[in-house]
Amino acid sequence: GCRSPSESDIAEKTASPDHAANQVMPAHRDVNQKPTPVKIERTSAHRVKVEMTAQVTDIEIDKGVTYKAWTFNGQAPGPLIVVREGDTIEFTLKNLDPAMPHSMDFHAVHAAPSKKFINIAPNRSKTFTYQASSPGVFMYHCGTDPVLQHIANGMHGVIIVKPKDGYPTDPQVDREFTLIQNEWYANNNLDDMTDGQPDYVVFSTKALKKGDPNTNGTTYSLKEKPLEAKVGEKIRIYVNNVGPNHVSSFHVVGTVFDDVYRDGNPDNRLRGMQTVMLPASGGAVVEFTVKEAGIYPIVTHQFHHAQKGAVALLKVTE
Amino acid sequence: GCRSPSESDIAEKTASPDHAANQVMPAHRDVNQKPTPVKIERTSAHRVKVEMTAQVTDIEIDKGVTYKAWTFNGQAPGPLIVVREGDTIEFTLKNLDPAMPHSMDFHAVHAAPSKKFINIAPNRSKTFTYQASSPGVFMYHCGTDPVLQHIANGMHGVIIVKPKDGYPTDPQVDREFTLIQNEWYANNNLDDMTDGQPDYVVFSTKALKKGDPNTNGTTYSLKEKPLEAKVGEKIRIYVNNVGPNHVSSFHVVGTVFDDVYRDGNPDNRLRGMQTVMLPASGGAVVEFTVKEAGIYPIVTHQFHHAQKGAVALLKVTE
Amino acid sequence: GCRSPSESDIAEKTASPDHAANQVMPAHRDVNQKPTPVKIERTSAHRVKVEMTAQVTDIEIDKGVTYKAWTFNGQAPGPLIVVREGDTIEFTLKNLDPAMPHSMDFHAVHAAPSKKFINIAPNRSKTFTYQASSPGVFMYHCGTDPVLQHIANGMHGVIIVKPKDGYPTDPQVDREFTLIQNEWYANNNLDDMTDGQPDYVVFSTKALKKGDPNTNGTTYSLKEKPLEAKVGEKIRIYVNNVGPNHVSSFHVVGTVFDDVYRDGNPDNRLRGMQTVMLPASGGAVVEFTVKEAGIYPIVTHQFHHAQKGAVALLKVTE
Ligand SMILES: [Cu+2]
Ligand SMILES: [Cu+2]
Ligand SMILES: [Cu+2]
Ligand SMILES: [Cu+2]
Ligand SMILES: [Cu+2]
Ligand SMILES: [Cu+2]
Ligand code: NA
Ligand code: NA
Ligand code: NA
Ligand code: NA
Ligand code: NA
Ligand code: NA
Ligand SMILES: [Zn+2]
Ligand SMILES: [Zn+2]
Ligand SMILES: [Zn+2]
Ligand SMILES: [Zn+2]
Ligand SMILES: [Zn+2]
Ligand SMILES: [Zn+2]
Ligand SMILES: [Zn+2]
Ligand SMILES: [Zn+2]
Ligand SMILES: [Zn+2]
Repeated sequence: GCRSPSESDIAEKTASPDHAANQVMPAHRDVNQKPTPVKIERTSAHRVKVEMTAQVTDIEIDKGVTYKAWTFNGQAPGPLIVVREGDTIEFTLKNLDPAMPHSMDFHAVHAAPSKKFINIAPNRSKTFTYQASSPGVFMYHCGTDPVLQHIANGMHGVIIVKPKDGYPTDPQVDREFTLIQNEWYANNNLDDMTDGQPDYVVFSTKALKKGDPNTNGTTYSLKEKPLEAKVGEKIRIYVNNVGPNHVSSFHVVGTVFDDVYRDGNPDNRLRGMQTVMLPASGGAVVEFTVKEAGIYPIVTHQFHHAQKGAVALLKVTE
Repeated sequence: GCRSPSESDIAEKTASPDHAANQVMPAHRDVNQKPTPVKIERTSAHRVKVEMTAQVTDIEIDKGVTYKAWTFNGQAPGPLIVVREGDTIEFTLKNLDPAMPHSMDFHAVHAAPSKKFINIAPNRSKTFTYQASSPGVFMYHCGTDPVLQHIANGMHGVIIVKPKDGYPTDPQVDREFTLIQNEWYANNNLDDMTDGQPDYVVFSTKALKKGDPNTNGTTYSLKEKPLEAKVGEKIRIYVNNVGPNHVSSFHVVGTVFDDVYRDGNPDNRLRGMQTVMLPASGGAVVEFTVKEAGIYPIVTHQFHHAQKGAVALLKVTE
Repeated sequence: GCRSPSESDIAEKTASPDHAANQVMPAHRDVNQKPTPVKIERTSAHRVKVEMTAQVTDIEIDKGVTYKAWTFNGQAPGPLIVVREGDTIEFTLKNLDPAMPHSMDFHAVHAAPSKKFINIAPNRSKTFTYQASSPGVFMYHCGTDPVLQHIANGMHGVIIVKPKDGYPTDPQVDREFTLIQNEWYANNNLDDMTDGQPDYVVFSTKALKKGDPNTNGTTYSLKEKPLEAKVGEKIRIYVNNVGPNHVSSFHVVGTVFDDVYRDGNPDNRLRGMQTVMLPASGGAVVEFTVKEAGIYPIVTHQFHHAQKGAVALLKVTE
């Protein structure tokens, strides 16, 4: 179908038993696994242990709309991972999904995919070691076939690799957030995923430190509870567009990006940008100043995607 | 609908009373407001007064196809605004639309959207003040909900903020134009806008000085009356893709861009580009040389959009 | 139609006599011209003679799916052309298509399109001369109306213009490949081309030297016979996305691009990129290191396009 979430479409979804809900696999129908906290532990100066789960967890993606998501750790996008340039990552994935294999592809690392991004069977666990040698804001995702389906069902997230010499603008930055853009299709519907007609396009934020907001990719979370900043602050956002299908025209209403680092690499600096083009799986570090109190919407300026949910709010107070 | 302007589609539009024409709101059905000249006045060294209207005006977007456009000043895209980096803009919007509120979001300025990009009721007027502190080729648009609908119905345009130290290539440039890419959907049809299936994708040009051509976004204007230049000239185009939904692969046939400044910022220079990626709402300054007399088509190289109208011609003579 | 190559769609294609096969023009129905070797000859220090054909040739684009392609030299994409910055190209196109005119638009050259990219009638030949003054990885294509149809039917390819001073990273590069991304629509179906719903999105490689693999744009060639490299090598790929409609998010799984040159120009250098945004007709030189033996998939991270075929494999051995 070539649908938008219009009234007639909602009618169709309700009427047609084969459209959405019943795309849930029989083996997943009664599965709803409680979110599992991610384990991240620095074990030495340049070594980090990360333990994650693959699991099936219900996520409310729009008011009253629950998605039987394939997830990392019961979140979609999955938990934020932060490491430092040059770190070796010792990564364990425990597959709690009773019905199918999953895997992990970190864009941040150098590794032979056929050896280190491989499938892990249901109820099994595997550990892989690789290095994050390049700084940036990288996507991670399940790489199990069909990859499109695994990403679109929720198996995506972000790993930030902090540059060892920082960004030239570090001294000016007052506040940092992470934002992720992702698409949601009719539940587990590979046809709609392949057509590229999402039901929703959404933003989420992931906590950079304790107390920060941490949300799933929903149409409402960052509207009901805006990100918060103070007048005059320079804000940095680590952003990635995990897709799976569409590019993003990332824009903050009411300001201009003073600095942009493509894919988050300090060498790829742009100045004075109104909007940043993010390929599917592309990232950026964007920085801007908010000069007045008020509400600043954050959107993809491909506005049909904003219409389908991709709006977050930033609330700036004195 | 998932339509192209094919023969069967034209038949469908004629046959189906609910498809296109009747999407015009009852309150707009007999409204066709005459274009209003924009007022731009420099009131001091670093201060510019701009007065614009929101109004409903019929625009012929294809031969024999009239769109009941929601516009700024009766043009779509709206009138070109040119200011200088650092200028304060004192902006007044008079809403002549009898039926609904409109607003103005300038990408060029720093302002709290919740205070300075706010709605103006029918037959009311408001004034806002903000600074254009960053140079470039910026989009402006109505920011009233649903923003997708207000942009797609015609409420978009360009504001150029001239860099205070110019561009490094200023001395070589012989001739300048402005080009804007926008999409047109079935008249006021939010479903088609949300689907992202435009009936037309078009270019327009806006006068940079008296006597320059100034057109609406149509399939034919810049084919029937090409832009004009002389052999050997270095041409600069200020370009912006106002969308609302799609990105643009901006290309001039028969040449290579010697220099490109992303979003029009002198710091974001690229060299020797065949095609420039413009996100939705993204701009650029592009420069190229035309070495022989003849006709040079200008396109988005996403060729189904060229097929739907997005072709302008540049005529080069001895 | 707004189709993906799902099971129901395959049924539809088989059942509906007007969908795919019968879109072949009557004049082409029994035409299947044997591939013609391209002629490239350096005639002096800065002058290259290139002779190509326009011809109609059956190409197996998916297992068991033959496309009646409009081609250059019986390949789709057409043969790779490599010249040096500053070369004058003396180009001859012989149109072997019995039924319609074709033409050639090289993005690499400065030329008046209305004089040097013009139509050549069936069974006629013409010669044009122009200069490749800018280095990079350029698209070429038939420019005959409707251009969308001529490109989508297979009339596209790549011309590499080697920079006269090379790339700063030349000394580190161990191995080079060319990759091209293109879309295939239902056979000669201008409606589907205009809708922008491809049946397939594919990669091909073209030989840079004798013995290198040289393939058409198919779903399977670069999976069955991967590109090959050795552990520890720095790989360079000359890549172009010839479209005709969609942008590409070019990505190699298991590594990060150490260096990227947008459109292949040495001045447009990016570092440490996970994914490169290619506009329609955009190119790049990308370089990366493969540190472990194994299989590295190459994709567009707009994953519905990978799902439709756009996956190539790189096999790395000790
Ligand atoms: Cu998975
Ligand atoms: Cu409006
Ligand atoms: Cu905007
Ligand atoms: Cu042709
Ligand atoms: Cu072209
Ligand atoms: Cu990936
Ligand atoms: Na600060
Ligand atoms: Na803005
Ligand atoms: Na000049
Ligand atoms: Na060109
Ligand atoms: Na090497
Ligand atoms: Na990778
Ligand atoms: Zn569909
Ligand atoms: Zn998976
Ligand atoms: Zn600023
Ligand atoms: Zn539709
Ligand atoms: Zn409006
Ligand atoms: Zn040039
Ligand atoms: Zn269609
Ligand atoms: Zn042709
Ligand atoms: Zn590396």
